[in-house]
Amino acid sequence: MGKKIVIALGGNALGDTAYEQLELVEKTAKPIVDLIEEGNQVVIAHGNGPQVGMINLSMSTAYEHKAIKSDMPFPECGAMSQGYIGYHLQNSIHNELEKRGIKKNVATIVTQVLVDENDEAFKKPTKPIGAFYDKDTADKISKEKGYTMIEDSGRGYRQVVPSPKPVDVIEKDIVKELVDKGEVIITVGGGGIPVVNKNGKLVGVPAVIDKDFASAKLAELIKADTLIILTAVDRVAINFGKPNQENLEEMSIEEAEKYCSEGQFAPGSMLPKVRACINFANVGGEAIIASLENASLAIKGKSGTKIHK
Amino acid sequence: MGKKIVIALGGNALGDTAYEQLELVEKTAKPIVDLIEEGNQVVIAHGNGPQVGMINLSMSTAYEHKAIKSDMPFPECGAMSQGYIGYHLQNSIHNELEKRGIKKNVATIVTQVLVDENDEAFKKPTKPIGAFYDKDTADKISKEKGYTMIEDSGRGYRQVVPSPKPVDVIEKDIVKELVDKGEVIITVGGGGIPVVNKNGKLVGVPAVIDKDFASAKLAELIKADTLIILTAVDRVAINFGKPNQENLEEMSIEEAEKYCSEGQFAPGSMLPKVRACINFANVGGEAIIASLENASLAIKGKSGTKIHK
Repeated sequence: MGKKIVIALGGNALGDTAYEQLELVEKTAKPIVDLIEEGNQVVIAHGNGPQVGMINLSMSTAYEHKAIKSDMPFPECGAMSQGYIGYHLQNSIHNELEKRGIKKNVATIVTQVLVDENDEAFKKPTKPIGAFYDKDTADKISKEKGYTMIEDSGRGYRQVVPSPKPVDVIEKDIVKELVDKGEVIITVGGGGIPVVNKNGKLVGVPAVIDKDFASAKLAELIKADTLIILTAVDRVAINFGKPNQENLEEMSIEEAEKYCSEGQFAPGSMLPKVRACINFANVGGEAIIASLENASLAIKGKSGTKIHK
Repeated sequence: MGKKIVIALGGNALGDTAYEQLELVEKTAKPIVDLIEEGNQVVIAHGNGPQVGMINLSMSTAYEHKAIKSDMPFPECGAMSQGYIGYHLQNSIHNELEKRGIKKNVATIVTQVLVDENDEAFKKPTKPIGAFYDKDTADKISKEKGYTMIEDSGRGYRQVVPSPKPVDVIEKDIVKELVDKGEVIITVGGGGIPVVNKNGKLVGVPAVIDKDFASAKLAELIKADTLIILTAVDRVAINFGKPNQENLEEMSIEEAEKYCSEGQFAPGSMLPKVRACINFANVGGEAIIASLENASLAIKGKSGTKIHK
């Protein structure tokens, strides 16, 4: 008997251009379809950091050069990124399923995720999006456009926007219905389009919800068995890059909390993955961090790092 | 007992900017929710001419100015427009339903539409997209970017791309399941992302499928009772703008065919609407052309023009 699995894919693993993305997504489709072929129900969530940044930058560049009549608000850029990445994912997964003779429908659901307008995150932008710049260019952009720019994981400078916590997934019932029927669904792209509730009306806000937290919230809401957050390494490590580096097969919630507070995991990289797994483990789910290549092994307990109660 | 209705909204009625679009879509949500409140199952299809043109132009402008690393292929621009317009529609319809205390889920399905790679349309681009330009600017764009530009309905010059006929809607089963369960679904945005079947693999192609034809094909595939194509006027007219103008309450397929061949309807405007209605009437469906404001009356036979067998 298969499991109901939410797979969280990183936006940084999708390449820098549409051509790169389509090629990478075609590769990504294979281990995802392996999981489907093994009898699991699969929901795919994905990041959109580089993509929404690219779309946002294109729109603002076109507006500056008077090619278009108005700027494009950030939530709408996020919606565009869901269409863009979702199309590539559903196209590639459909093609891979057809190739293997598996009859399943695949679709992307454009997804809004509710956040709290009083979330502390709105006071302090922290989520890196878009291209990497050197310090001089970053300073120039910051001055010209008023963006907040920070140094990101030693790879250069990037724009940052607020990253509030997900409270609810607006389209969760539709996602659950389809997944429970065995369809393959792509949802909460880029962590979802962030919306706040203003007097009973949902209104988009300029922010990026961390896709790992959104995936954990979705997994909880649709009563998934397993959340698997994919990353570039096979297992989570403590003392990363040091002589005493230790790759972990599993962590209890308590151990994971301790490592987080020790600063073992890089903010904006491994830290939100571990924290999202803690969230899902706390509501009784199975949470795993693993590499894409070993996703199938990880589901069988033979790779990845499991976070458990 | 309600009807299963496919509503086709025009992309030109969605405004020129995100701010205009959100305002217009909030108004559009009201007559759509009227139909839902009256007990009908509703699927919304929409055009994307101005929007996909705006996205495409932004991406190419950003690429020209080296703000982004690559151009953005046209099918991907279409996917973005589905996310962008779909988000506004599902947000506004959700808000209107909540306001009226109606518990229904609303979502946008990113949708691919199969076309035939041997479709004659690929030899002759005819579908206007994007902004209107004066002749000099149009000539300049044509020279610089190699776009085909034509004069469009007396409103100026626009880029044209091929407009092949829809053969199948790839995500039709998911749309049908959800609509039959009573959910409100937005699909085949911009006529769908056009894909061709290359040796069993779906591949995106640069084209725009007419949203009226895509809506008629969708209505046929999901076994809808009614296709209602919304436009700026209450009824279809023959001898339009002449002293003998006649606003039609209904047309038989034979009459509609005759009027089409007489050149009664403007290509790229009323002509595809009438032709799409003929297609749906031919497979036994009820096809209506009406204004947004009178959509509810039209469903009750009190407004609009019905095309019937």
